[in-house]
Amino acid sequence: MSSGNHRIVLADHPVGEPRPADFRFEEVAMPVPGDGQVLLRTIYLSLDPYMRRRIDRGDTDPRAVRPGRLMPGGTICEVVKSRTPDFRPGDLVTNGAGWRQYSVADARAVRALDVTAMPSATALGVLGMPGFTGYAGLVKIGAPQPGETVVVAAATGPVGSTVGQVARMAGARVVGIAGGPRKCAHLIDDLGFDAAVDHRDPDFARRLAAAVPDGIDVYFENVGGAVLDAVLPRLNEFCRIPLCGLVAQYNATEAPGTDRLPGFLDRLLEVHGTVRAFAMTEFVGELYKQFVKDMSSWIQDGRFVYREDITDGLENAPAAFIGMLRGENLGKTVVRM
Amino acid sequence: MSSGNHRIVLADHPVGEPRPADFRFEEVAMPVPGDGQVLLRTIYLSLDPYMRRRIDRGDTDPRAVRPGRLMPGGTICEVVKSRTPDFRPGDLVTNGAGWRQYSVADARAVRALDVTAMPSATALGVLGMPGFTGYAGLVKIGAPQPGETVVVAAATGPVGSTVGQVARMAGARVVGIAGGPRKCAHLIDDLGFDAAVDHRDPDFARRLAAAVPDGIDVYFENVGGAVLDAVLPRLNEFCRIPLCGLVAQYNATEAPGTDRLPGFLDRLLEVHGTVRAFAMTEFVGELYKQFVKDMSSWIQDGRFVYREDITDGLENAPAAFIGMLRGENLGKTVVRM
Repeated sequence: MSSGNHRIVLADHPVGEPRPADFRFEEVAMPVPGDGQVLLRTIYLSLDPYMRRRIDRGDTDPRAVRPGRLMPGGTICEVVKSRTPDFRPGDLVTNGAGWRQYSVADARAVRALDVTAMPSATALGVLGMPGFTGYAGLVKIGAPQPGETVVVAAATGPVGSTVGQVARMAGARVVGIAGGPRKCAHLIDDLGFDAAVDHRDPDFARRLAAAVPDGIDVYFENVGGAVLDAVLPRLNEFCRIPLCGLVAQYNATEAPGTDRLPGFLDRLLEVHGTVRAFAMTEFVGELYKQFVKDMSSWIQDGRFVYREDITDGLENAPAAFIGMLRGENLGKTVVRM
Repeated sequence: MSSGNHRIVLADHPVGEPRPADFRFEEVAMPVPGDGQVLLRTIYLSLDPYMRRRIDRGDTDPRAVRPGRLMPGGTICEVVKSRTPDFRPGDLVTNGAGWRQYSVADARAVRALDVTAMPSATALGVLGMPGFTGYAGLVKIGAPQPGETVVVAAATGPVGSTVGQVARMAGARVVGIAGGPRKCAHLIDDLGFDAAVDHRDPDFARRLAAAVPDGIDVYFENVGGAVLDAVLPRLNEFCRIPLCGLVAQYNATEAPGTDRLPGFLDRLLEVHGTVRAFAMTEFVGELYKQFVKDMSSWIQDGRFVYREDITDGLENAPAAFIGMLRGENLGKTVVRM
């Protein structure tokens, strides 16, 4: 007899790009909440590039995922049963339930979600972790001044599109890098970027140079790989490089034959540049309230545009995840259960 | 008939480690000061690692030195003739006359030197550019807190020995890296470092790890190369890496076979680290007066120790420069004319 509850675990550490066989869809027993707990049904599951890092064999983070363990992820859930006075059935909450249909959580491990102002999935994207990552990294580290040039890779994604739009509101010239003409057109036509460059173009480095006639003051690094090589020669003195992800290199299996580190450091030295790696968590206390206030009002005013790329069904999460790592999504990747 | 005036020019761009033949000792005419100018006789010439960068074929800096051109360098000079009311014969000044015995300068291009408090050569070392580089990079970028661990390479040099001693006064635990037992003993016995590690030791990485049981909060990078590789795994969360030079890689001619950049960026991301490349010039306005005040009083109190490595005769400058790049000096390298 079916329990009606399913989850997806890591079957094996991927080598290079993940394959569907690296994940396993399992049926598990329906969990039972204890005192002070709630039973949750997942409504939306967030898929994000950092997960590729977490499932890598070499990940040294305490949160690294080993084979047989649940795939992690931010979620929006509905309370099904409650054994706490804090929540009632039907309440919506955000938490990190991972890739599963039902879960049990302590009341203090979930956060009530206010859905009166915004559609609930935004709490996983533009108003959640990715949006805050872009906002905080740009504001606190990039700190663009009016007239400066900001370049962001993966620019149509939830982090990159936030970086670009917030930078424009700060008066910067914004150049987005994305894969393919459809995404580049979206940057210009929908998100108001000043220029867009297709990283798949064989002439990418020259086109990027042409798009930044005054050089680059802020390069928001959320990709790694070849884009950085094209950015380096265009960096301006006292440039800032907020570093929040390296998705291109998580999937890389072989290193190119030459050591790029000496050239990278030498170039930094020439321009007196700053590289600052960060996680959005370090800025939550200082900046999160301001972020929610700013972003909510910008969205309501129509000054800020966001896109969601929604896949239906938990069983389709692996394919959606693999596609996101390939850059097949446009906007925030979310699984609707 | 001899003019009595000599200089050293770059004969050819060095490939890897400079050789004596890359420099040429020349006799030139005695210059004649015009109105508002002084004729200067060089007393001390400063030799510094940045010069290796300036003479590299690939240097893109406007100050790059091409074959046939005068070797650059900071100097202390005596005024021989004056055609300005600002200076009299016998006055001592600091300027950047380069590798030559006599030169002419505008009065506004030289700075009067107060030698009542300190021996004059200190203006090229501990009280000059190298001392200020270490002080400013440590204070403004490294910003060590009491109890934190600071690691500095080339620790017996004028920059590194300043970093280490200032960090100790700030309450940090200080670990110096140097080449050979004599320099390591100097760090502990004379400069008061908490630990010293010999980078020539085949077991260097393990010994460094043992010397930093609480990890590394500040790594002052003035060397590059293999030291950085040993530092990376020991970096703590929110570590700071002031980057002011890469002398080890200026002399490197072939890159190792693997690309170290992805691992470097990945590690930065793991620890949310900061790399900030700088030149001391950017902090002069803000910090130079405080530096002179602090450093002068520390030296007079005996709380700060400095060493100078003095070579006599302009003709010996190339050998002294090559030796400094090999790490044969102990303390600030200066040529006494």
